[in-house]
Amino acid sequence: MELLKNTLKNIQDVNAEFYVIAQRHLDNLTKPPGSLGRLEEFAKRLVAISEGKNPPLDKKVIFTFAGDHGVTEEGVSAYPKEVTPQMVLNFLRGGAGINVLARHAGAEVVVVDIGVDYDFSSTGAEHAIPLQIRKIMRGTRNMTKGPAMSGDEAVQCIETGIELAGKYAKKGYRLFGTGEMGIGNTTPASAVASVLTGRSVSEVTGKGTGISEESLENKIQVIEAALSLNRPDPNNAIDVLAKVGGTEIGGIAGIVLGAAANKVPVVIDGFISTAGALIAYCLEPKSKDYMFAAHNSVEIGHSVMLKKMGMRPILDLDLRLGEGTGTALAMLIIEGGLKIYKEMATFGEAGVSGGIVN
Amino acid sequence: MELLKNTLKNIQDVNAEFYVIAQRHLDNLTKPPGSLGRLEEFAKRLVAISEGKNPPLDKKVIFTFAGDHGVTEEGVSAYPKEVTPQMVLNFLRGGAGINVLARHAGAEVVVVDIGVDYDFSSTGAEHAIPLQIRKIMRGTRNMTKGPAMSGDEAVQCIETGIELAGKYAKKGYRLFGTGEMGIGNTTPASAVASVLTGRSVSEVTGKGTGISEESLENKIQVIEAALSLNRPDPNNAIDVLAKVGGTEIGGIAGIVLGAAANKVPVVIDGFISTAGALIAYCLEPKSKDYMFAAHNSVEIGHSVMLKKMGMRPILDLDLRLGEGTGTALAMLIIEGGLKIYKEMATFGEAGVSGGIVN
Repeated sequence: MELLKNTLKNIQDVNAEFYVIAQRHLDNLTKPPGSLGRLEEFAKRLVAISEGKNPPLDKKVIFTFAGDHGVTEEGVSAYPKEVTPQMVLNFLRGGAGINVLARHAGAEVVVVDIGVDYDFSSTGAEHAIPLQIRKIMRGTRNMTKGPAMSGDEAVQCIETGIELAGKYAKKGYRLFGTGEMGIGNTTPASAVASVLTGRSVSEVTGKGTGISEESLENKIQVIEAALSLNRPDPNNAIDVLAKVGGTEIGGIAGIVLGAAANKVPVVIDGFISTAGALIAYCLEPKSKDYMFAAHNSVEIGHSVMLKKMGMRPILDLDLRLGEGTGTALAMLIIEGGLKIYKEMATFGEAGVSGGIVN
Repeated sequence: MELLKNTLKNIQDVNAEFYVIAQRHLDNLTKPPGSLGRLEEFAKRLVAISEGKNPPLDKKVIFTFAGDHGVTEEGVSAYPKEVTPQMVLNFLRGGAGINVLARHAGAEVVVVDIGVDYDFSSTGAEHAIPLQIRKIMRGTRNMTKGPAMSGDEAVQCIETGIELAGKYAKKGYRLFGTGEMGIGNTTPASAVASVLTGRSVSEVTGKGTGISEESLENKIQVIEAALSLNRPDPNNAIDVLAKVGGTEIGGIAGIVLGAAANKVPVVIDGFISTAGALIAYCLEPKSKDYMFAAHNSVEIGHSVMLKKMGMRPILDLDLRLGEGTGTALAMLIIEGGLKIYKEMATFGEAGVSGGIVN
């Protein structure tokens, strides 16, 4: 709890002075003012977060948290829970979507077992990517029968993310991203979204990886039952995370808070990642200035949470895989914005008439 | 005219058989079916265009056509026309937005003087990027006083694009992109958009690089005057290009047709590029299957033209610079889709349970 408390205390507003400095530089580049739209916004925010140090973004890391969910007993997912460890092993071998897109973006992937119901230490195999074993529990408990986690467990999940963020900030990584894997995890994400945005369960619950209409009805009822049994306090994000959240959602909240405390920008993936980001935002709204929303997911609850935080997603590609796949692609766009800032010629350098004559 | 005629004859439908083959492979990758959304669509189309050869996209080229416009005499732009050659020199030195983003995307930039009112051969300077001098004319004529080009000149512009496309297809480039530079060129692009979509001038005319409300009124009147004087035939895209278009718009139409005839996918940048693409589409609608719309420009006429062709843009970043900047970023996303197709593990390879159980 100390680590979380201190981290929250250390999160400061981004220094607004640097927005002005960055804008002045952008307006001096050989293009009509503002004509690179959101790329210019991204650049400005990166400059402000780094306080003008404009670090190269060649050290990028995506944290992909994996966890299981007791609520899968209620038939909320299209896949059996065994797929969670199977996919973790796929990540470690480099064959999953996140591996492909992270390589494309030049980002490292850090796979974290924060709550998988499987003992990876016994596999003994050598993998292309090392697994970080930070298991808080072997899957959450079934939230239709009681809280998914204790308050202590929820805090431990967040602190795991904070620790990792601190470690990678110290190693010199200057852009973080989030991702996750966990069969059933759109269910806790919808529960978190409903409580923290005040919207009904049906407004924030979708088909996840691809369940039927009938299964969707069941999923909504399962979430409603969990909420009415556990009564999470909407003004206490840790209570919400504990009662109806998940280990990976907590880990992601921790990455976001740790990123903000270390002044490192962080790219938030899709629906589940945004549930984690929303928990971070509720704990400390200043963390928002360090976040970039990677994309607009197909999951209907995603845009509701982004709107709650006032965030506009970078991409809109009908993605609904998670893992950090949208994060990887968004990193490429954000990096494009910073390169514009750092590499374009100014009007003076290029001998281009910059005077606006209208 | 022969080259154009033969090219149009050579454009074939994309072989639909390969969509089925590609879909089968995508559904066997370790992810829920369709969960990578538009990335999967992009991959499928690339596979179908290449007829299953799945070429690496490491040879990518963006053609940035530059031309001047007689209509700038009417005060339609925020910048003096001298900026066109100044920006061409900026491209050649590698300091412009397109240079930065093309480097980021790993794409080559080919700068083509197709109609700039400046003699680059006299500069004698060595540049980082060679200039292709394919000048059809030194700027178009003022379309408020007569046709911007003759029919022959318009065809020569298109054939210039076709020739370049053929040359780079032979050199092994497997992804083309378009871009442009030409002070005043949102004016002919709006004129082309109005005629070929049947929408009023005010519905497809915006502020370009950033003119005032008053200047926008003038710009609309200028375009209306040009259309009522020249009466371009909406059923004859070459007549439209000649009377109210521009050299760079013709060059882009040629790149699109040449790409389609050579079975090379082509990424269309923003408003002006899409006016060129729309001319290509009107000449041969089959060319559409080879096109990717890079982004949704701030210019209001852009989405009107995309809708006319039934195309959904890849990015939405409030860009309005042109040059091919949106193209470069979109290439990164498209390439991500192809890498997913080529590099992801299948369920069998990864030992992941693929059965859907809902």
